[in-house]
Amino acid sequence: MGRTVFSTSPRVDVIVDLGNPFLNLTVDGFLKIGSVAVAKAAAEEAYFIAKRGSVSRHDFEKSLKKMCREGAYWGTVAGLYVGMEYGVERVRGVRDWKNAMIGGALTGAIVSAASNQSKDKIVLNAITGSAVATAAEFINHFT
Amino acid sequence: MGRTVFSTSPRVDVIVDLGNPFLNLTVDGFLKIGSVAVAKAAAEEAYFIAKRGSVSRHDFEKSLKKMCREGAYWGTVAGLYVGMEYGVERVRGVRDWKNAMIGGALTGAIVSAASNQSKDKIVLNAITGSAVATAAEFINHFT
Repeated sequence: MGRTVFSTSPRVDVIVDLGNPFLNLTVDGFLKIGSVAVAKAAAEEAYFIAKRGSVSRHDFEKSLKKMCREGAYWGTVAGLYVGMEYGVERVRGVRDWKNAMIGGALTGAIVSAASNQSKDKIVLNAITGSAVATAAEFINHFT
Repeated sequence: MGRTVFSTSPRVDVIVDLGNPFLNLTVDGFLKIGSVAVAKAAAEEAYFIAKRGSVSRHDFEKSLKKMCREGAYWGTVAGLYVGMEYGVERVRGVRDWKNAMIGGALTGAIVSAASNQSKDKIVLNAITGSAVATAAEFINHFT
């Protein structure tokens, strides 16, 4: 905990230590989940290119932009969530699935508030974020 | 592993043992994530009822139906994913984040194939499922 170690089979480790566990976790989440999103966008583009059978300079630029956009978005949401979960853990003093539930709700609310959505949408996104985070926590920790 | 133990603060344990780890995990995922989705739908309905200030018999029936539908859908997807991840783990013989990646891709493909979507949509959902499962795995295991 506290240092970003992202590793794939041919070992590539990115280690960032900012000396503060909250910041470290957030940067950690941003880098790891950002990489996942970049890979996702790249896989989608690769599928369309393979289907079309050709690739132009314009397509390439568009793909690159999409990868950056998706990577930054997923990274931000994940960093926020990891930071929130850690904050909730510190405030509550325990480590269980309720941290994921509260962290998910806060993340959902903040992300939709930041993107200027209506009050209804913020509440619904908070509920959805909470449910998704709880579900992910259950799947990964209870089985 | 292998038995469904779903616990909340006032302890409520549901234990189902079908004698087969694959089936147990799937049922386990279905029950746990189904419960999360039912709670999510209930929270959404509660928000709308609180906002409107009144509740009719018709609304109540609609809410109940929505809870069942969402619970069954999330439960099915989660059960499928947990089963797939376990299957991939057995076939590969190792337990790492790549199981989540492959399991997520299979789940995304199967769910969209089952709902009669186009071939493009199946591939894209497989990629998205894979990315979401990998991201959830990273968030829960590497921090």
